Amino acid sequence: MEQKKKINIIYGQSGGPTSVINSSAYGLIKEAKKHKDIIDKIYAMHFGIEGLLNEDLLDLSKYTDKELKKLLSTPGAAFGSNRYKLNDEITDKEKYEKIISIFDKYNIHYFFYNGGNDSMETILKISRYAKKVGYDLNSIGIPKTIDNDLAEMDHSPGYPSAIRYIANSVSQIYYDDKSYLSGRVNIVEIMGRNAGWLTAGTKLAELNGAHVDLIYVPEVPFSLENFLNKVIEIYNHKKHCLVCISEGIRNKDGKLIGTIKEEEDAFGHAQLGGVSVYLSHLITEKLKIKTRYFELSLLQRSNSIIPSSVDTKEAIKVGEKALVAALKGKNGKIVAIKRVSSSPYKVKYVTLDISKVANKERTLPLKYINKEGNNITDEFFVYAIPLIKDKKGNGLFDVFRID
Amino acid sequence: MEQKKKINIIYGQSGGPTSVINSSAYGLIKEAKKHKDIIDKIYAMHFGIEGLLNEDLLDLSKYTDKELKKLLSTPGAAFGSNRYKLNDEITDKEKYEKIISIFDKYNIHYFFYNGGNDSMETILKISRYAKKVGYDLNSIGIPKTIDNDLAEMDHSPGYPSAIRYIANSVSQIYYDDKSYLSGRVNIVEIMGRNAGWLTAGTKLAELNGAHVDLIYVPEVPFSLENFLNKVIEIYNHKKHCLVCISEGIRNKDGKLIGTIKEEEDAFGHAQLGGVSVYLSHLITEKLKIKTRYFELSLLQRSNSIIPSSVDTKEAIKVGEKALVAALKGKNGKIVAIKRVSSSPYKVKYVTLDISKVANKERTLPLKYINKEGNNITDEFFVYAIPLIKDKKGNGLFDVFRID
Repeated sequence: MEQKKKINIIYGQSGGPTSVINSSAYGLIKEAKKHKDIIDKIYAMHFGIEGLLNEDLLDLSKYTDKELKKLLSTPGAAFGSNRYKLNDEITDKEKYEKIISIFDKYNIHYFFYNGGNDSMETILKISRYAKKVGYDLNSIGIPKTIDNDLAEMDHSPGYPSAIRYIANSVSQIYYDDKSYLSGRVNIVEIMGRNAGWLTAGTKLAELNGAHVDLIYVPEVPFSLENFLNKVIEIYNHKKHCLVCISEGIRNKDGKLIGTIKEEEDAFGHAQLGGVSVYLSHLITEKLKIKTRYFELSLLQRSNSIIPSSVDTKEAIKVGEKALVAALKGKNGKIVAIKRVSSSPYKVKYVTLDISKVANKERTLPLKYINKEGNNITDEFFVYAIPLIKDKKGNGLFDVFRID
Repeated sequence: MEQKKKINIIYGQSGGPTSVINSSAYGLIKEAKKHKDIIDKIYAMHFGIEGLLNEDLLDLSKYTDKELKKLLSTPGAAFGSNRYKLNDEITDKEKYEKIISIFDKYNIHYFFYNGGNDSMETILKISRYAKKVGYDLNSIGIPKTIDNDLAEMDHSPGYPSAIRYIANSVSQIYYDDKSYLSGRVNIVEIMGRNAGWLTAGTKLAELNGAHVDLIYVPEVPFSLENFLNKVIEIYNHKKHCLVCISEGIRNKDGKLIGTIKEEEDAFGHAQLGGVSVYLSHLITEKLKIKTRYFELSLLQRSNSIIPSSVDTKEAIKVGEKALVAALKGKNGKIVAIKRVSSSPYKVKYVTLDISKVANKERTLPLKYINKEGNNITDEFFVYAIPLIKDKKGNGLFDVFRID
């Protein structure tokens, strides 16, 4: 009886890490280990394609299950990520050749790349080149991005944990400010250059009774004048005001707020911090109200403190499904989460052509933004609550409230 | 048989909230409810002394145990805090009279105030005035402050949860930056105007393998030149550099870093953000290295996500002990935690004269600061680890590490 020749597989991480990118690695490795008849070694690229080009591979076979399980709580990209961009086959010919020669040398025939829309472009390029030169390679994409801007899917792994962290942090800020009869204008800056998905997540702070007064996303042009008017109106009424804004909010001319030129700048000097610092000082200056600004920065993507358990579970699953897709001979595909129903929450995993996802960007649907363009609608709850809740509760901490 | 006349008690919150100030409230209320033979009503001041002066009292008797238990995860000051300062008895004569008349009106004879060193001064003043005018009042202080600067105690409730949050956040930042072959200089700004206790807590990030390259506390004069030299040395070597600094670091002339005047400022303009923003831009400007800054701001004191379980337990206990002290007739005392041993971790609760604590400040002992003044010694582990560890682990998340 002829014995089938075993192959090796490789996994790489790319782009900005998420809370659960390593959970997808875990899912893939665990599944791969189940197929010892076909798969021999499991490699990881050390720092993605950048490391691969240096033949810097990690052999994951040596790690025990107990050790690998720690991937589930590890922030960052455990095997190293990268922002390396492969040019086209003509410009970067040598690099494509090198990648295929390394794959060949290590008998690698399944290639998994865990990333966002830019990284999917990389898979597409390598997959096409392999086909062209007749190298047998199944290339599968595993989605991840806190931005939730990947096309064609309900959401991407990483997003649920990010908004759980964001909503909890915003709620903490709300309750801290509420400690005083007279509070401040608190401005929280959330990631998202072009898409308001993460900032919309601040709406979830309402789940434990907190309330964000104003929410601004990049999908709607931002007016400084309207903003200042709303802030003073709210603060005068409540003596508290909580504002959440995307880092990428722009004025009607498409200019990023906080990078407005000197002559337009209330302070007459260049801007040091982000948009929250800018707006915070504008309020102090113009409205004479005490402010505080917060930039959650990469803490929102490296959250290992309160990952969403749905997110962890799904991230493991997309890793598993990627392996299964390769086993089935699929190539140039990405695993995607599609929602079957919101109540009860149910999803299915499908594979899509990577070309449908690569370099595309999905912004926040307008139905989730209120008419005034300064808050998020309740409809968003239907979409987002199932992503962060678990057996213990709705994903936020319990709060004692006086009547 | 003569029936003893029952009394009412009042509890107030003061100063900046901590993660566990409401746990102390819970401990006090729970204990008070056990003494129905003596204690009738349990009141809370709504916004501390400020609310008391407006006769704004909350009757806590109406809340169920289930409802009260939510205090254990509630950030902020659940009953409202304040930063109100009582002047001396002559200047604020009417206010002292009003306080006593309200106490008398509501039959309040135990007064508990939960705060830091400033708030202890308030208790002392009211306690002395009550004695002077012959009003029967037992005044007891319940300590809280994330700054850990209260004199005469091992640590104050609030500090353990704050450093658990800080260490976990710093570790997340470390691992996120480590995702790339070439990272940034990350600067994390921690609270603490005069004491480096909180910033020292960043050392605990080492518990899951993270490493803070440079730690600066207010106890040591800060030299910009030495700092920039160290940063470039470390970054050139590792392509990563993680710096944690107290907001209160000062140069040898006692000037706060980041508030240095225009002529001394590398940018020639006023400072918008905090010291981390300032240093971050200085590094970009002078060393041409990419940076990122983080201000944990009040998230470090409103942490309801990962409170330290030791902290919660001890906070409840000081609340209980405060009630017991009043029952024993004590007056003008504060409950304090004294450490019996570090391994195994064991504490006892004592009562001290408030005058020993009020308006005093305890800074970080020099034995916890290294010779170069730019990091924390391992000795700090002995002190701090027991404050954040629990049954599940050392208080940080597990990390998968490649060899």
